[in-house]
Amino acid sequence: MTERLGPGATIGILGGGQLGRMLAVAAARFGFRSHIYDPDYTPPAGQVTNAVTRAAYDDEAALAAFADAVDVVTYEFENIPTGALDLIGTRRPVRPGRQSLAISRDRLTEKQFLSGLGLRTAPFADISGADDLSRAMAGIGGPVLLKTRRFGYDGKGQVRIGSGADAIAALDTIAGAPAICEGIVDFSREVSVIGARGLDGAVVCYDPGENVHKGGILHSTTVPARLSSDQKVEAVLITGRILEALDHIGVIGVELFVTPDGMVVNEIAPRVHNSGHWTQTGCAIDQFEQHVRAITGWPLGDGRRHSDVVMENLIGEEVARAPEIAKDPSAALYLYGKAQVRAGRKMGHVNRIVG
Amino acid sequence: MTERLGPGATIGILGGGQLGRMLAVAAARFGFRSHIYDPDYTPPAGQVTNAVTRAAYDDEAALAAFADAVDVVTYEFENIPTGALDLIGTRRPVRPGRQSLAISRDRLTEKQFLSGLGLRTAPFADISGADDLSRAMAGIGGPVLLKTRRFGYDGKGQVRIGSGADAIAALDTIAGAPAICEGIVDFSREVSVIGARGLDGAVVCYDPGENVHKGGILHSTTVPARLSSDQKVEAVLITGRILEALDHIGVIGVELFVTPDGMVVNEIAPRVHNSGHWTQTGCAIDQFEQHVRAITGWPLGDGRRHSDVVMENLIGEEVARAPEIAKDPSAALYLYGKAQVRAGRKMGHVNRIVG
Repeated sequence: MTERLGPGATIGILGGGQLGRMLAVAAARFGFRSHIYDPDYTPPAGQVTNAVTRAAYDDEAALAAFADAVDVVTYEFENIPTGALDLIGTRRPVRPGRQSLAISRDRLTEKQFLSGLGLRTAPFADISGADDLSRAMAGIGGPVLLKTRRFGYDGKGQVRIGSGADAIAALDTIAGAPAICEGIVDFSREVSVIGARGLDGAVVCYDPGENVHKGGILHSTTVPARLSSDQKVEAVLITGRILEALDHIGVIGVELFVTPDGMVVNEIAPRVHNSGHWTQTGCAIDQFEQHVRAITGWPLGDGRRHSDVVMENLIGEEVARAPEIAKDPSAALYLYGKAQVRAGRKMGHVNRIVG
Repeated sequence: MTERLGPGATIGILGGGQLGRMLAVAAARFGFRSHIYDPDYTPPAGQVTNAVTRAAYDDEAALAAFADAVDVVTYEFENIPTGALDLIGTRRPVRPGRQSLAISRDRLTEKQFLSGLGLRTAPFADISGADDLSRAMAGIGGPVLLKTRRFGYDGKGQVRIGSGADAIAALDTIAGAPAICEGIVDFSREVSVIGARGLDGAVVCYDPGENVHKGGILHSTTVPARLSSDQKVEAVLITGRILEALDHIGVIGVELFVTPDGMVVNEIAPRVHNSGHWTQTGCAIDQFEQHVRAITGWPLGDGRRHSDVVMENLIGEEVARAPEIAKDPSAALYLYGKAQVRAGRKMGHVNRIVG
């Protein structure tokens, strides 16, 4: 365990999308420098720092030079080769650690990890081909989801199978990629908890937010979520157990389904999370600063929420609504500096204090 | 009046200190790029953007190239030669305009402007030498302040004169610089209003904050200020009048003395202001975003305050308290990325939600 990093230290961030951008901004607010590593020529986060390395995640020389130029390394998304983390890890601390990334970027290892902790997940099975799939469908019963083990986000890499007749078409869709089959959970709502664990082991959670998805992509998060106080406690305890079990340093996002029989863990993201953007407007210390504090060895904020907030994503062409949204004089608008509008691309979000 | 600037446009900022830094961060949050112009080799704001011009304020070629590289120009402090603004103004809109800067950077023109609006100021007189000074002291009566007309901030460029015997020494201190003599106002407290005026002429003010100075430098701002509702209205109306009279576009800081006979305007700053830093933690839309909205032609936020806040500056060695302050889990800490600690230098601030 290293010392607390002093102001002026540099945080290396793998990935220069909007999450990396908002992390870099939070780092700056706290007096840290940041250095973005991204294969893209013009990553959104590259606009908010004077240090960017543009290289592939398997460029060992670039990774080594990047590590040497910074004091600690973190990441904005989980689809980074573990090899890159291993190489960097020989030179600088990587937080959260390899285990958090390796487990959460693969739907099978993630489910196995969660089950191993005694937490409820959707029923699932490892799928290597048609035989596995028909066995799994029989075992689970009813419609299922076929999901690739890796590279799934925003509803990508998954297909719903209503009956055995659809199974072959579904397998074709994922083109032989390693996959799992999941039962469909009958939930009343989806909530998520943004938690954090410091270098000293302290755990802090924000209030659960209630998520609404559209077309597989997060549409809005509302805090507080409509949960009983027992449910709130359960959600927070689950998040704490996951943070401890991973020996996680930094922020984590835990998506939970609320069912009559308790919480079912849908998935975990070992990083700042879209469903935690409301903290920018609802808390004195937001999830980005919380992550920066955790990975640099500073004390965590307490996650206290001063206001009720609705966060709404601006996806693709929805960003054209920004000028209209800005007319609401209490709407805090966040735009990501992405030049190209594409369908399904997260272009910004808006936080509104409500009530 | 130009159109609203779209996301991806670039805001040019003259001055790369902490105010320029926080403006650049707010610009990024709103999807704008920023470009810092500063004579210093490593301005704090240079860490949070990928575009920095390092050149003097009288380097015409650099100023022209800077103007051509951006869409609108603003400034973080008022001690910029008006010539620089004039040159830039032939190429790009400068907001706030030349008049706001020219008036507020000179204590004499500022006082004349305020008096001309019928607003109360301390009694004052233009001082060119010892004769002027003794005449002014006789006219004002009691102790006075001798202040240089320009380059005064954080208590610099001013000296208190208790009696005629001190007058010559005081004049020596300012070494022949153009100066004014001011009567000392007997005030119960100092408050400031952070106001803003949009490109469409809309005016919005934040709640007045109550300021405490130590050694001539702002120590803390507390919101709400202890003001009656009449006093609050008066403070806001004064700010509105000043914004209108200057045809100001952007944020302004107006410092007011509270006296039994009403508000006395102490000084105005045509820019985001230290006493407005509390808005970062107390409002959905802070003074920096408000300024960005104003100068880019976007609608202003409503200035609504969701929480009571105490802002405390970290001056010089006080920044060493940052790790201790961070242990208060609801203290939002802002550090400016300044490598060198110097006495009297603003190194950061902390916002605490109270009550």
